[in-house]
Amino acid sequence: MLLVQKYGGTSVGTLERIRACARRCLETRANGHDLVVVVSAMSGETNRLITLANELLGPREQPQIGGPYVVSEGGSDRDYQRELDQLVSTGEKVSASLVAMAIQRLGGAAISLVGHQLGMQTDRVFTNARVTAVDRGRLHAELAAGKIVVCAGFQGLDPEGNITTLGRGGSDTSAVALAAALGADACEILTDVDGVYTTDPRIEPRARKVDRITYEEMIELASLGAKVLQIRSVEFAMKHCVPVHVRSSLNNREGTWIVPEATPPPSDSAAQLRNLEAPVVRGVALDRNEAKVTLTNIPDVPGSVATIFGALARDGIVVDMIIQNASREGATDVTFTVPEADIERSVEQLRTLELGRDTQILTDRAICKISIVGVGMRTHAGVAARAFEVLARANINIQMVSTSEIKVSVVVDERHGDLAVRSLHEGFALHEGP
Amino acid sequence: MLLVQKYGGTSVGTLERIRACARRCLETRANGHDLVVVVSAMSGETNRLITLANELLGPREQPQIGGPYVVSEGGSDRDYQRELDQLVSTGEKVSASLVAMAIQRLGGAAISLVGHQLGMQTDRVFTNARVTAVDRGRLHAELAAGKIVVCAGFQGLDPEGNITTLGRGGSDTSAVALAAALGADACEILTDVDGVYTTDPRIEPRARKVDRITYEEMIELASLGAKVLQIRSVEFAMKHCVPVHVRSSLNNREGTWIVPEATPPPSDSAAQLRNLEAPVVRGVALDRNEAKVTLTNIPDVPGSVATIFGALARDGIVVDMIIQNASREGATDVTFTVPEADIERSVEQLRTLELGRDTQILTDRAICKISIVGVGMRTHAGVAARAFEVLARANINIQMVSTSEIKVSVVVDERHGDLAVRSLHEGFALHEGP
Repeated sequence: MLLVQKYGGTSVGTLERIRACARRCLETRANGHDLVVVVSAMSGETNRLITLANELLGPREQPQIGGPYVVSEGGSDRDYQRELDQLVSTGEKVSASLVAMAIQRLGGAAISLVGHQLGMQTDRVFTNARVTAVDRGRLHAELAAGKIVVCAGFQGLDPEGNITTLGRGGSDTSAVALAAALGADACEILTDVDGVYTTDPRIEPRARKVDRITYEEMIELASLGAKVLQIRSVEFAMKHCVPVHVRSSLNNREGTWIVPEATPPPSDSAAQLRNLEAPVVRGVALDRNEAKVTLTNIPDVPGSVATIFGALARDGIVVDMIIQNASREGATDVTFTVPEADIERSVEQLRTLELGRDTQILTDRAICKISIVGVGMRTHAGVAARAFEVLARANINIQMVSTSEIKVSVVVDERHGDLAVRSLHEGFALHEGP
Repeated sequence: MLLVQKYGGTSVGTLERIRACARRCLETRANGHDLVVVVSAMSGETNRLITLANELLGPREQPQIGGPYVVSEGGSDRDYQRELDQLVSTGEKVSASLVAMAIQRLGGAAISLVGHQLGMQTDRVFTNARVTAVDRGRLHAELAAGKIVVCAGFQGLDPEGNITTLGRGGSDTSAVALAAALGADACEILTDVDGVYTTDPRIEPRARKVDRITYEEMIELASLGAKVLQIRSVEFAMKHCVPVHVRSSLNNREGTWIVPEATPPPSDSAAQLRNLEAPVVRGVALDRNEAKVTLTNIPDVPGSVATIFGALARDGIVVDMIIQNASREGATDVTFTVPEADIERSVEQLRTLELGRDTQILTDRAICKISIVGVGMRTHAGVAARAFEVLARANINIQMVSTSEIKVSVVVDERHGDLAVRSLHEGFALHEGP
């Protein structure tokens, strides 16, 4: 088998951890597998480098990885972002060399590949680039020579040869992209947790590790998954059908497989039965980082809502849930949620618009969003109704609702977030397993 | 004018120093010059990375930059050395990005070039590579766009695209190589001293900064020059006639120009006169890192001396001075010097040889070498005699002598080193200037 293994910052955070990582690589090799390893920067290193840049640029310019572009006096945003990528990408280069040396020290054959050696091609979006292609030549050659190939994660090259980075957690996408390009049998994400859980165990101690989850479910459960892997890497894996295995770097237990949805042929009734037995709800996610905006008494004329969301989109603000009430007396209310970090910017944008004379802008940060996710919803009716019933029994007031094919999300008061998660986890018997 | 400026590790050692470096770059640009900047790693960074590698590999494997290859159990020396170069080269990449950002912050246009972007091609000798060519395409393009180009020093790429490094102080050679490739008007080495001195001011407080020195003199004065720039960079500059200007990064005073020897046309009698007025001795250098080996009673037969030095050469030991006494009764004595660090290895090698029955191997670490250097010696007789006279007056016993066209070196007891330097400095009136 050809495996791609990705080790996160904690798994290479000390020399002792690096040695453990090297031992695991050699065990994998001893089991007869070809191996490509992708490493993150040693934990703390990326932040150290960003802090250097921040201190250099002064308090007004805070470059962010994967965040909005920097606004500054001297230099253009793009120039800064380019240098920032050149700067922070060194962290993964250091880890890659150290891991390769550690494998060599234990008697294995290894080589680190970085920058142009790696052949990870991306678009031109500094600090948040997307992988466009992978040159496999050097990778194939080193694998054919029997070496463990240790790749610097998180980075690529744009068409001009500038270094780009793939956003926070981008090493996961590096790993999946390499697995896709090489046709690897699996992409293992080795981390400090055992896998993906039905919900955050800090909220619900009975949360259970999930053995298998579909790409779609994992993407919808972003707020759970974001702790163990970059959600964009799952989208990439789904597009290229790469089986992803999230597991602990500290033991050899099976973790969580992220895989395509099982679609048994119509004739296979046993498989259909198994599919029916699949849990309706796979997990419960909590997102505390949203805020709610309500516009009251908007004139109910064509285009007024388009004006509002057009203005926010132009400013790069991502709107999540939207509710528009029925019109009464020629006016309507619109409520929507945005990332809490964008709330001030949103209100500023809205103030520039010519809304109605009686229109008020109300904001509420003290909310959270709870989502239940599961591909089983496609074949099971009444999941939303059951969720509302569970929350009602717990005396939790629902402020907003949005549903998709495999998800039901509700917005509730922030104080009720944990209780809502526990109630839904219990209500759908997630602690019991499939 | 097109200038190349090299800033050492101290000059980019803190964010405040990096800002000062950026200001100086912008001043140079404001004076109308095109500018390529070469930076070292922030002071301490290279050692930090090497320490990481050393701790990882354990006490028996000590990789060295520019030193002999590592001997290890797992992995080959070359594999380790390759990873070490991939590792330590990140230090200069970090500085290059930070300096470019600092220039941008001050309103200037700058771009950092590293790795394949830089186009510094070298041979395949990891940890001590030699520059073979420079791709000028990207450099020319960025200069034409009006940018200050900030290059990561110390590193290049071998023909397979592996990262190589140029040995300790290799950023100086990076700078000279770029200056040569671009046909720059000068290569400025910005450092924390004012230039090259007639001798080490810690030994002779009256040591005087030299305004001009020839490439040949600088190379012979390596032990003085090695503190301010890599001697190999001077050899490179001589080969390509690049004027090198060693000066302080802390002020705007002229430093020391390292230039070709002035060769006025025969008809120019005024110039000839000036040339005659040039000092006979340019400087006095002290080297404490040599040790002396004496082999007594070697059978005086053809090939015996060749056997000795052949054995040492095969082990990579560089022999400096050699004296062979006249033969008496069919036997002879040979005395030579080697780097102090190689003395044990030398003795081991010599013990493996079948020398004479009465041959003894004597070693002496308590020696030092003093050299007086000056192209004026070519036209002035009696410089060596004058030097011996000066030392004799100071009651210093000379153990070995070696002379070249522009240098006289003597080996004396280590305890007499400083006195010898001061006596020669005084004896040739070096404090008085040309």
